[in-house]
Amino acid sequence: MLVQKTSSTLIDTLRRRRQRLAALINFPVILWSGSSSPRNYPANVFPYRASSHFLYFTGLPLPNAAILLEAGKLELFMDNPKPEAALWHGEMPTPEEIAQLIGADAARPMAELDSFVEGAATIAVQDAATWTRQSQILNRWVLPQNPPQGIDLELAKAIISLRLIHDADALAELCQAATVTVEAHKAGMRFTMNAKIEAEVRAAMERVIIAHNMTTSYNSIVTVHGEVLHNEQYHHSLLAGDLLLADVGAETSGGWAADVTRTWPVSGKFSSTQRDIYNVVLAAHDACIANIRPGVEYQDIHLLACSHIAVGLKDLGILRGNPQDLVEMDAHALFFPHGVGHLVGLDVHDLEDFGDIAGYEEGRVRSDRFGLGYLRLNRPLRPGMLVTIEPGFYQVPAIFNNPHLRSKYQDVVNWERLSLFADVRGIRIEDDVLVTAEGSKVLTIELPTDVNDVEQLVQQAN
Amino acid sequence: MLVQKTSSTLIDTLRRRRQRLAALINFPVILWSGSSSPRNYPANVFPYRASSHFLYFTGLPLPNAAILLEAGKLELFMDNPKPEAALWHGEMPTPEEIAQLIGADAARPMAELDSFVEGAATIAVQDAATWTRQSQILNRWVLPQNPPQGIDLELAKAIISLRLIHDADALAELCQAATVTVEAHKAGMRFTMNAKIEAEVRAAMERVIIAHNMTTSYNSIVTVHGEVLHNEQYHHSLLAGDLLLADVGAETSGGWAADVTRTWPVSGKFSSTQRDIYNVVLAAHDACIANIRPGVEYQDIHLLACSHIAVGLKDLGILRGNPQDLVEMDAHALFFPHGVGHLVGLDVHDLEDFGDIAGYEEGRVRSDRFGLGYLRLNRPLRPGMLVTIEPGFYQVPAIFNNPHLRSKYQDVVNWERLSLFADVRGIRIEDDVLVTAEGSKVLTIELPTDVNDVEQLVQQAN
Repeated sequence: MLVQKTSSTLIDTLRRRRQRLAALINFPVILWSGSSSPRNYPANVFPYRASSHFLYFTGLPLPNAAILLEAGKLELFMDNPKPEAALWHGEMPTPEEIAQLIGADAARPMAELDSFVEGAATIAVQDAATWTRQSQILNRWVLPQNPPQGIDLELAKAIISLRLIHDADALAELCQAATVTVEAHKAGMRFTMNAKIEAEVRAAMERVIIAHNMTTSYNSIVTVHGEVLHNEQYHHSLLAGDLLLADVGAETSGGWAADVTRTWPVSGKFSSTQRDIYNVVLAAHDACIANIRPGVEYQDIHLLACSHIAVGLKDLGILRGNPQDLVEMDAHALFFPHGVGHLVGLDVHDLEDFGDIAGYEEGRVRSDRFGLGYLRLNRPLRPGMLVTIEPGFYQVPAIFNNPHLRSKYQDVVNWERLSLFADVRGIRIEDDVLVTAEGSKVLTIELPTDVNDVEQLVQQAN
Repeated sequence: MLVQKTSSTLIDTLRRRRQRLAALINFPVILWSGSSSPRNYPANVFPYRASSHFLYFTGLPLPNAAILLEAGKLELFMDNPKPEAALWHGEMPTPEEIAQLIGADAARPMAELDSFVEGAATIAVQDAATWTRQSQILNRWVLPQNPPQGIDLELAKAIISLRLIHDADALAELCQAATVTVEAHKAGMRFTMNAKIEAEVRAAMERVIIAHNMTTSYNSIVTVHGEVLHNEQYHHSLLAGDLLLADVGAETSGGWAADVTRTWPVSGKFSSTQRDIYNVVLAAHDACIANIRPGVEYQDIHLLACSHIAVGLKDLGILRGNPQDLVEMDAHALFFPHGVGHLVGLDVHDLEDFGDIAGYEEGRVRSDRFGLGYLRLNRPLRPGMLVTIEPGFYQVPAIFNNPHLRSKYQDVVNWERLSLFADVRGIRIEDDVLVTAEGSKVLTIELPTDVNDVEQLVQQAN
């Protein structure tokens, strides 16, 4: 079933991952894979998604399984499928066969897990059936909403230090996800002039992902209302003057994600106001990528994006004052309220189940500044990290109509001038960028960002 | 957000539904809508699906809401979105506006629900956050895996008696789901000759569903291994001699489902053996539909399908003996091990969260016969019921290799003759059939079943 293919290097990669883990902690670890979450009734489930931590150490989305990691050894706990399961789900490989595929030292039935729990750390899995079982077997609460504590926290920190830096097998999967995502965006651009509503463009994009036997790594955003940051509506009509913002990413069968956004004109032609703002966002995007290299603070990349937005909006007459002052007073955040990006890996916001423990270097906490509070990553960059770079410009009514913000920034915004840009509700340009020893590599480089190239793709409507 | 459109008759329909409920029970009812289930971390959720029972009485997939139904009245409990939600999710209608849309008598904040719980019945919602809250507020365990008891059971039976018979608004939605599903299957047929793997056909089909701003009502089956009944793999290559079995259905934004299966030749041409078996299954399918009318026992429809399979396989020389005897000894179930269908409505297996309470007339229980045990519906048919008719033929290794079955049916199967039909691993033909006063109406009639028509669609490859 799940074992469609395993890379020839998988067994070695998995061994190296658990050896690195063993070098960091000296207690046993039990990781559960999870089980399917029910949708409208128990037998109608959402597509199964294994826990990312389990996937990291096994490479396979096995359901209802657990692994014991101790001193570099791997033991697999899973039950043989019941005989009647073969009728509904086909013949499945035995636990022993799966153990061999992933280089496990043993395969044991689930019932034996009880004898291995003493002193074991774990990470909560998201589905209730599994965290209930974790809590029962370990005889303590293991809840996905609670931050890890004690040895679980030590384990979390060890896993973070591994997963922050992608190895070659991880990168191969991340590149596959990126490649399919690029193709999906191109399909979306090419279909837009044939589409009447957002859902049709979404369908053209997700078709590419499904056809590659992948899933979306998050719920797609495909909207002419990009000013709603997490818009999951797809029913709006596409009108000639609209910009369409598409934030869509693929996930490989092994769970590795891509996360890409482009914004393009429904008509195939940006208006001059749309083009002006798009180029401000693109300048920020390009500057951030050009400045990514080991040792650079990701927060400084964020602030660089803010500066470019401030300079660009000042040049367009929308903001007034010294750009550096504008950024210091968070005036950019009126139009760019979110962070410039985040980690990407087995989770599209990688390791976000640990809250800011993963995204923030130890000792750092979220700022309460309007222009920094939504930043999800605040660490110095290191080779092997994969991050998004995704500056944007939005006209968010909830911000513009906020009396406190409106009065605080009354003098630095030329509201009359801004009103000329009413056809720009939301623009975001997002790529997945690998930090390398030399600087950076954009995994999604094949997807154009230049206005003319984007227009050309849209105009290729089929 | 969720309120894209509401039918002009919705308020009246909802009022009638709760009046009918009030005529059946005399205690208050609280139904929760549910909340999103986490996928790989809390903020990355599966697409939200509201509880079907909540949808039945509100028509809208509101998240994190509850309703009180009492004596025909409807009160809505939901909180105003937090101000920062507008940034991420856009401006949302207020609870009062939503209450007006659905004809509710009041809108109250969630915190007030506590004062209305005395003596109230409920139905467990699938997601853990919600059933935890239900259990806390009602001060008793409300678990989706436990069958309802006491007043909850009375409520379940009342809801079943309502939802068994579809009203005009329900039928309008079910027809929409059926129409889009038919279009999806046609797209799948037309794309098959261009596809290399199953996933590409699935993608062509689901694209149609997504483009109509619908979702799939269950995880699609699109496979050249139809003998695996619930096959959710899509990586197999399409080879010239293969049959492709596609069991794919759309679900409207209001939650109403379709459930359709077709089986077609990858090459555009059935082999003579495939055509022979296909026509046996089709004869069973057509006979079942022709015999659907009020008063008929659904189990008899199932047995009619079994008879047709037995007769057809006898005619092909695969089974030996008197067809009636063959059915009585369950020999048909070697090749057709599942039931001929089930209820369809807001759930693709409608009301299956109640187990067999919905599918089985009071006092009836599942048979332990090999050929009847998987039958999901055992009631006399009534006008307004929607059922699937889905006979099939499969060569399931887990059945053929079962020593008990193999020896029991040794003499009635001509195994040598059967081996000539090795290119028929799995065939199913499934339509959604409404029981009407006059007989029946096939909601999915526009999708051909005839071999020549199916071949023609596949050969239209674009």
